[in-house]
Amino acid sequence: MRASRYLLATLRETPADAEVISHQLMLRAGMIRKVAAGLYNWLPLGNRVLRKVERIVREEMDRAGALEVFMPVTQPSELWEESGRYVQYGPELLRFKDRNDRPFVLGPTHEEVITDLARNELQSYKQLPINFYQIQTKFRDEIRPRFGVMRSREFIMKDAYSFHVDQASLQQTYDVMYDTYCRIFSRLGLDFRPVQADTGSIGGTGSHEFHVLASSGEDDIAFSDSSDYAANVEMAEALAPASARAAASQALARVATPTQTACADVAALLGLPLSQVVKSIAVVAPVPVPADDKAGAAAQPGQRFFLLLLRGDHELNEIKAAKLDGLKDFRLAGEAEIVEALGCVPGFIGPVFKQGTGASVTVIADRSVAVLGDFVTGANEAGFHLTGVNFGRDLPEPALVADLRNVVEGDASPDGRGKLVIKRGIEVGHIFQLGRKYSEALNCRVLGEDGKPLTVTMGCYGIGVTRVVASAIEQNHDEKGIIWPDAIAPFQIALVPMNWAKSVRIQEESVKLYEQLLAAGYDVFLDDRNERPGVKFSDIELVGIPHRIVIGEKGLDAGTLEYKGRRDAESQDIPAAGLLDFLAARVQR
Amino acid sequence: MRASRYLLATLRETPADAEVISHQLMLRAGMIRKVAAGLYNWLPLGNRVLRKVERIVREEMDRAGALEVFMPVTQPSELWEESGRYVQYGPELLRFKDRNDRPFVLGPTHEEVITDLARNELQSYKQLPINFYQIQTKFRDEIRPRFGVMRSREFIMKDAYSFHVDQASLQQTYDVMYDTYCRIFSRLGLDFRPVQADTGSIGGTGSHEFHVLASSGEDDIAFSDSSDYAANVEMAEALAPASARAAASQALARVATPTQTACADVAALLGLPLSQVVKSIAVVAPVPVPADDKAGAAAQPGQRFFLLLLRGDHELNEIKAAKLDGLKDFRLAGEAEIVEALGCVPGFIGPVFKQGTGASVTVIADRSVAVLGDFVTGANEAGFHLTGVNFGRDLPEPALVADLRNVVEGDASPDGRGKLVIKRGIEVGHIFQLGRKYSEALNCRVLGEDGKPLTVTMGCYGIGVTRVVASAIEQNHDEKGIIWPDAIAPFQIALVPMNWAKSVRIQEESVKLYEQLLAAGYDVFLDDRNERPGVKFSDIELVGIPHRIVIGEKGLDAGTLEYKGRRDAESQDIPAAGLLDFLAARVQR
Repeated sequence: MRASRYLLATLRETPADAEVISHQLMLRAGMIRKVAAGLYNWLPLGNRVLRKVERIVREEMDRAGALEVFMPVTQPSELWEESGRYVQYGPELLRFKDRNDRPFVLGPTHEEVITDLARNELQSYKQLPINFYQIQTKFRDEIRPRFGVMRSREFIMKDAYSFHVDQASLQQTYDVMYDTYCRIFSRLGLDFRPVQADTGSIGGTGSHEFHVLASSGEDDIAFSDSSDYAANVEMAEALAPASARAAASQALARVATPTQTACADVAALLGLPLSQVVKSIAVVAPVPVPADDKAGAAAQPGQRFFLLLLRGDHELNEIKAAKLDGLKDFRLAGEAEIVEALGCVPGFIGPVFKQGTGASVTVIADRSVAVLGDFVTGANEAGFHLTGVNFGRDLPEPALVADLRNVVEGDASPDGRGKLVIKRGIEVGHIFQLGRKYSEALNCRVLGEDGKPLTVTMGCYGIGVTRVVASAIEQNHDEKGIIWPDAIAPFQIALVPMNWAKSVRIQEESVKLYEQLLAAGYDVFLDDRNERPGVKFSDIELVGIPHRIVIGEKGLDAGTLEYKGRRDAESQDIPAAGLLDFLAARVQR
Repeated sequence: MRASRYLLATLRETPADAEVISHQLMLRAGMIRKVAAGLYNWLPLGNRVLRKVERIVREEMDRAGALEVFMPVTQPSELWEESGRYVQYGPELLRFKDRNDRPFVLGPTHEEVITDLARNELQSYKQLPINFYQIQTKFRDEIRPRFGVMRSREFIMKDAYSFHVDQASLQQTYDVMYDTYCRIFSRLGLDFRPVQADTGSIGGTGSHEFHVLASSGEDDIAFSDSSDYAANVEMAEALAPASARAAASQALARVATPTQTACADVAALLGLPLSQVVKSIAVVAPVPVPADDKAGAAAQPGQRFFLLLLRGDHELNEIKAAKLDGLKDFRLAGEAEIVEALGCVPGFIGPVFKQGTGASVTVIADRSVAVLGDFVTGANEAGFHLTGVNFGRDLPEPALVADLRNVVEGDASPDGRGKLVIKRGIEVGHIFQLGRKYSEALNCRVLGEDGKPLTVTMGCYGIGVTRVVASAIEQNHDEKGIIWPDAIAPFQIALVPMNWAKSVRIQEESVKLYEQLLAAGYDVFLDDRNERPGVKFSDIELVGIPHRIVIGEKGLDAGTLEYKGRRDAESQDIPAAGLLDFLAARVQR
């Protein structure tokens, strides 16, 4: 492409309303422009990157045997009513009526439509397994669209849905998709990790997220430093400490902590490590209605009060806690509830109850608390904490010892190999064992090998195509601009002629070289603008073209060209005759 | 692709609600399935064709120097209010509100969004000309979606918009797009014609439609049999007859035509050719408000009554008529209006007025009527016609002689070369000189060479990508099914092994050949199903794979394969060793 025939819409200023770096750089590089909140035009430069990502995703999905389909953006609401999501999905599901007053939605995802397709087209187990995918526009009416295309309302997704006779077959396709995703993100040139993820309320049996590692990521990911273990922090198990409980060596004592309600302040006052101070998190959870209470006799079954004990240096993992018996749908206790249960205001509570209190309180200790001796807790008396606290001596053993916390750096890896490291990531892909959630709701059945109808088992597999573009920038940029991986760079090579406006020789040689490189199959950007070299260099660095070649009169005399990789500190002169070999060794395609 | 891993969703029965052949065959071949009225899923087979069309369109647009962008499906209604189309567009424009009650539309087209983009990104005449295109989903809320993807609500369009300093520059890009469209439809393998088209109310200065010729087309197209003249019938000029008016030879006579109100019945009764019977079409048009009537004094300026005279064998062309002075916004006169003006009921009216009538009537004659002598018209008396009617003798010369009719087969070509032939076509592309309609409405200006702001001139260029698929079928099918052009066939070659289930030799040789053909770059469909050959042949003919190769034991012994082109009457044996050469000469790629 010649710059003079292109729309290079670079901006010198950083737009005021762009919070994250990818959003700033996509605007400054002239990749996108806002049309309305959460809606963007992709300018030519951005579109080139988008299409390259799309092509790699399509090639790898085809290679994995998935069959491409194309489903409509607008979907009849009937299908969403069948699945129950017409109500469940909430206001992010954009609902509208057509000219005949029929209700439709703008598809945020296509489980319903594909399951409808499958129940109509699949008759026999012989047709399974089958995996359909599409690359299509989605719409989610985000309450607060932000971060540019990272969290926009309209976006492009590759979504795939597989259908199976049983879990074993699903697992096979799931594994193929896992490998395919690894290949896709590798080909895209991204530093990524597949991580175990929570299956959430959808209740499937397996799930992995694919994260692009970037310090600006919204998610915390835990890795082993010695194995390939990786999981979202919300999922990663904190193993029980290998050591036994420390023996009691101190007497129980009551110390004044007049203003110290936070663990860190108590530890500082007492000169103890934060890990010796135990925080008691008061929560309440509804008592479940017994399964045989069909008449609803216990319409108000009441609630149960829990103290969750964690070390001062640990954080509660709410997902883990909610999975424990009795803690489904728990919430933090209010101040009045705490005073009623423990006779003490928040900030000084603990598991050592004063007489006449605590009878209704269930104590659950995190695994790392259960091995502490001589620890510190609130005294259940305003202005006081207890030191030298020991289970079995000063208070009963906890009702339950469980994994209640987020893992932290240095924890043992759950696979028993090495220690955990924590990094931030951006979720760009998600594979998910759906099970029969949708096939049961929409009655998607085939004839099984035994001649009887069989409800199919499903998997789903998504990649946020537009989001991949933004995450690539979050991971690959410097103060000058974007640094594209070769595979998805809008142009692989920038050709910058010095003195273009005045030198016919430069013009002729530049065009000749440009055409040579095009013929060799490279995406080349010939900067034939009448601009100063500094302007050209800045633009090329801002838009992130990974390889730059400068053509000057001196070089032409000497038979050399000046090459600089986008990450290189210095440029280097290379023999013009050897250029193609030089590039073949450097440009990844 | 191996059939055993594919979704071949062919149907034996023709679905009841499919009216046109392409819709029937797309359903029967398993290319599409209906999701709701005017909304379709593209199954794997249909999607393959869609992507091939898309690829050819993209390659040729890129080659023409157009820059691909990607604009959102959802558009803020503000932009449509700026252009005036938020009201004008009517109910096909789907309007909705987001969760914050902001009004949006689903884009049926993108003039507003691209003009907004251009006014923000283009500052100088130096950036022009520039041509942006996208391949994107559109939505039109058709009142009666039908004919499958031929007239669906959601569809894929390639739309392009060019920006220019002046008309001369627009004309250059317009010509490039004209050539590009010719190349696109040629590469798609379609028999098409670019035809001059009406510019309609949009008021541009030039327009061509690209039609795929097919007997089921909705449009009539007129071609010269001796030149490359082609125009939509609504546009094609009917030249004045070369001959002078025939001299009067009969006396005026009043004949009884008691029940004959239609020209054909009158001609039959009188034993005259239909071309001698003149029909009088009564229309009324509002009298325009004078331009200087700013106060609106003539708020009810009234209307004017016209008789439009056409030969009985000709049809009124309303577009031509509406362009005549005084006939803007005309409509057919009602019975009461006709009786008031002519003193006669419809069916017997004519331009020879009875005393005391006709004073307010303006007579306009078609060019072919103006040269008639001794013609027949209604007598303005119920139950009677006049014969031997002659202008200048029995009635005054018409107030105006004009081209009022649609051309018919055999008319002289307007370019003076040859005679017209009329065929039916399906409009699949449209290029259009928009002028400044949108750039004025949205104030899209750049700095001109003289340093003054300049309102840009625009062109727009559309291809109905999904519609191309249907039109290719309308043009290329037989009683067995679809006959794809090689370039857009879902698979180019079908490989049919005989006795697949039982012969290991056949299986091995088939897979070997399959892999050879894949390696040679062909899209191959290996029918490895355990089905009878007849079932396989029917499916392959129905889905329209253009080249078929059968592998059988006898052929393997003899070193031959059986080849049949989809249009061939008979198959032929070819030497297996020469297959690649044989295919290279036949398969277009």
